Amino acid sequence: MKKIQIFDSTLRDGAQARGINYSLADKLNVLKLLDSFGIDYIEAGNPASNPKEREFFERAADIKLSHSKLVAFGSTRRKDSSAEEDAGVQALLSAGTKTVSIFGKAWDLHVTDVLNTTLDENLSMIFDTIEFFKSKGIEVIFDAEHFFDGYKANPEYAFKVLETAQKAKADYLVLCDTNGGTMVCQMREAVRKCASSFTTPLGIHAHNDSELAVANSLIAVEEGAVQVQGTLIGFGERCGNARLSSIIPNLELKMGYKCLPEGKMNELYETCRQLAEFTNLVFDETLAYVGQNAFSHKGGMHIDGLKKAEGSFEHINPDLVGNRREFLLSEVAGRSAMASKLESEYPEVAKDKQKVSELMNKLKDLENEGVSFEGAESSFKIFIMKELGMHKPQFKLIHFKVFDEPSHHNTFGAYAVVKVDVNGQSRMAAADGNGPVNALDKALREALGIFYPELTKVVLTDYKVRVLETSHATGAKVRVIIESSDGKDSWRTVGVSTDVIEASLYALIDSIDYKLLENEVH
Amino acid sequence: MKKIQIFDSTLRDGAQARGINYSLADKLNVLKLLDSFGIDYIEAGNPASNPKEREFFERAADIKLSHSKLVAFGSTRRKDSSAEEDAGVQALLSAGTKTVSIFGKAWDLHVTDVLNTTLDENLSMIFDTIEFFKSKGIEVIFDAEHFFDGYKANPEYAFKVLETAQKAKADYLVLCDTNGGTMVCQMREAVRKCASSFTTPLGIHAHNDSELAVANSLIAVEEGAVQVQGTLIGFGERCGNARLSSIIPNLELKMGYKCLPEGKMNELYETCRQLAEFTNLVFDETLAYVGQNAFSHKGGMHIDGLKKAEGSFEHINPDLVGNRREFLLSEVAGRSAMASKLESEYPEVAKDKQKVSELMNKLKDLENEGVSFEGAESSFKIFIMKELGMHKPQFKLIHFKVFDEPSHHNTFGAYAVVKVDVNGQSRMAAADGNGPVNALDKALREALGIFYPELTKVVLTDYKVRVLETSHATGAKVRVIIESSDGKDSWRTVGVSTDVIEASLYALIDSIDYKLLENEVH
Repeated sequence: MKKIQIFDSTLRDGAQARGINYSLADKLNVLKLLDSFGIDYIEAGNPASNPKEREFFERAADIKLSHSKLVAFGSTRRKDSSAEEDAGVQALLSAGTKTVSIFGKAWDLHVTDVLNTTLDENLSMIFDTIEFFKSKGIEVIFDAEHFFDGYKANPEYAFKVLETAQKAKADYLVLCDTNGGTMVCQMREAVRKCASSFTTPLGIHAHNDSELAVANSLIAVEEGAVQVQGTLIGFGERCGNARLSSIIPNLELKMGYKCLPEGKMNELYETCRQLAEFTNLVFDETLAYVGQNAFSHKGGMHIDGLKKAEGSFEHINPDLVGNRREFLLSEVAGRSAMASKLESEYPEVAKDKQKVSELMNKLKDLENEGVSFEGAESSFKIFIMKELGMHKPQFKLIHFKVFDEPSHHNTFGAYAVVKVDVNGQSRMAAADGNGPVNALDKALREALGIFYPELTKVVLTDYKVRVLETSHATGAKVRVIIESSDGKDSWRTVGVSTDVIEASLYALIDSIDYKLLENEVH
Repeated sequence: MKKIQIFDSTLRDGAQARGINYSLADKLNVLKLLDSFGIDYIEAGNPASNPKEREFFERAADIKLSHSKLVAFGSTRRKDSSAEEDAGVQALLSAGTKTVSIFGKAWDLHVTDVLNTTLDENLSMIFDTIEFFKSKGIEVIFDAEHFFDGYKANPEYAFKVLETAQKAKADYLVLCDTNGGTMVCQMREAVRKCASSFTTPLGIHAHNDSELAVANSLIAVEEGAVQVQGTLIGFGERCGNARLSSIIPNLELKMGYKCLPEGKMNELYETCRQLAEFTNLVFDETLAYVGQNAFSHKGGMHIDGLKKAEGSFEHINPDLVGNRREFLLSEVAGRSAMASKLESEYPEVAKDKQKVSELMNKLKDLENEGVSFEGAESSFKIFIMKELGMHKPQFKLIHFKVFDEPSHHNTFGAYAVVKVDVNGQSRMAAADGNGPVNALDKALREALGIFYPELTKVVLTDYKVRVLETSHATGAKVRVIIESSDGKDSWRTVGVSTDVIEASLYALIDSIDYKLLENEVH
């Protein structure tokens, strides 16, 4: 099977999407996630653009990637300069990556009207910049920006751009449909022409402005492209980039190409979910392959058909991508998922079909209320222990009350009062904070610290809030996920309520509970 | 220009989508909306399936459509029966439409394993049913269900099905990719074969399970199909049907076909919005052509490029489909974004370079504190008015206090007390809610409603929370964005604080402020 290189730009082009704003920690998490999934190239931002990008590359250098190549992104040198002296080129070099992607203009209109330079100078800018990085032993992926628009407007010049990049020994020539306006027939014709004209391997970089990014990427591969650029779940400027979560299974399960390392395809669903968590955007459940609706069946005829003939109303077996079938009007399968979750800690329970079914039903009830243990494994563990009657709580919260008002010299601002019970001993505590949840967190630790001094080492390292049903606005349910750490281990817990403070409290209680349970075991 | 028939199934296949549940009034509204937009065929449900469908056709008969043909949907007769005696066929006839769509099985597996009948009997079922409706003078659109799967599994039989429908004088043979698994190359080859084998006009009905429904529909048209079936904004079982809001502009603006009556293309955006309103699903703003993000630009280079050369970063002029260009303000955007934002409302300020720079610096300061006006244009407007000394607040919040404790029979749960001042008159109010923010929202409206009755019409339609620096966990800053609506317009505002309640409060105050300012102006 022919191998297609997968190039993900969630951290670079994906950051251009409306509503996306990565923290440094998010970016590092995405890097590790995509590496462990087996993406070939992971493109991050432009080190010249801001200090946050520079810091990312410094921190990323300490991470040992198991599969992926990290790519820094930048432009060709400025006009009337040299590559050596160009600040942007130097910034790109300073990222210290073994691969860079460099974009240059392939549409004459952009050269003359946006860059305000000559067509010849643009070719020199491309040549010099690529040559500079190649002379440093760095792999260069050349992005021919607006290639398809350029090919329409001035095909001769668009080809000259590719020839120049080839002459400068670029490792890949990537054909970019930057505006996303290219129709499938134009795509096929242009890529075919390029494949017969250049010996350098071709890549495709498509945008979704005509809802054709996936199709255009597949067509480019059929015509000879060996690298597909996109973003895993389609984030990107305007309508987004080509969605790799659709392209990868289409290529690998339908068209006979190889994209991922062996055994990774069935991690697709889970990987996409985790990526969405980092970005805190609502997941589109109608997405091909990875949406929760992708294999859910509502029509009675379809459900009946599926029961009579497996595959009669599904284009693939959902297990192949780690998704699952769902009948919206009937009982849910997915027992095997639960069993496999149980296997490591409670192998005897995993074998008990009756028990697994009971747990599944209970989990379904919770899911209907909006609780999800995705990304909150410690709460899942506590849930299982409670259901199996193996959970001995180390404390009980008897009451809490939270107050919040503007903080002046004569008010408390945000503050909380709690009362806990530990083995029959009750204790009250109060604390203020820079918000009600922070106050509650401090008050809880204050109350429990005398019984469990190990809690003083615990800090909260992440806090995420997600609104579940936006249609109800401030009356909607929210899901809070917190990550805690004792300096050695970290763990994540979840809480759900219509009340953001209560949701946070549930997650805090699970976090403390988990820490104390772990201490008891070890 | 060659005319392509547009066939919308929002009312039939669209109803199979998860989360969709039309009332009778919704269905009638959709019918009128699609008719006035100029859709050629509007398919509604199966009159045999339930009384609501039957009632719909009775009511629809009283509506005079200006352009569209209404289509009732049903299956071929049951096995071992006659069309005349078949209850389903009679129900379909009773709908009283001049056009029906009839689906029959084109995949041998379905005939033998789902219908449990012989391949020959299936052909008779198809022939008899079509012939029956044709004998009544009714136009028949024949949907060859699973045509592409059938063509892969047993091409000879799949063709026999189409031949049978043609012999029975069906008006259209519609090739259905029911499972949505067909790749673009298979699509092209199969439709080409059909176009050269049958004289009856062809249609295409694609599903989006491989994210190829739009591309496959366009390819079918290129190969000779003259009817495209889909749903306007893509609703449908699993991953949805082919999205007509992408297909229509692709065909008409890019590929030289005609789909809509003259002058209707620029109603596309508004029509899609209205359709989404009827269904109460969240609109996907990344949709091609009709999403709010489709022509919104965040990257500084893109914004700069667009100002230098119109069309340099857009595949079409957004006016063509009734959408509009938008520049998002963010750290990557620059001064040109600010200037263009100012242009429409404050043209004289936009020209004042000194003033624009001052505003930019102030904006940078706010962004460093975590405020971002991306997706909160109304707060941006208030910010500008404040900075230009043009903001006259309509009320003042003197004090608030929020309380939160578990809700028992003898506690309030979450509740809020506020005191406001309106033109020197002060007023207190209190309210409880299912969370502290909901309580605060209700208390504020309660206090202000006596002065500004127009606020009673305002509801919050979306609420988003984003933690800004996760490293500080519960002590981190949060950004809250709320969307408000008065049933006619909607607007979005932002608030930032370490305290999620305070952040929500700021966004609420901006929202009310904005509504009152708009009222004053108009």
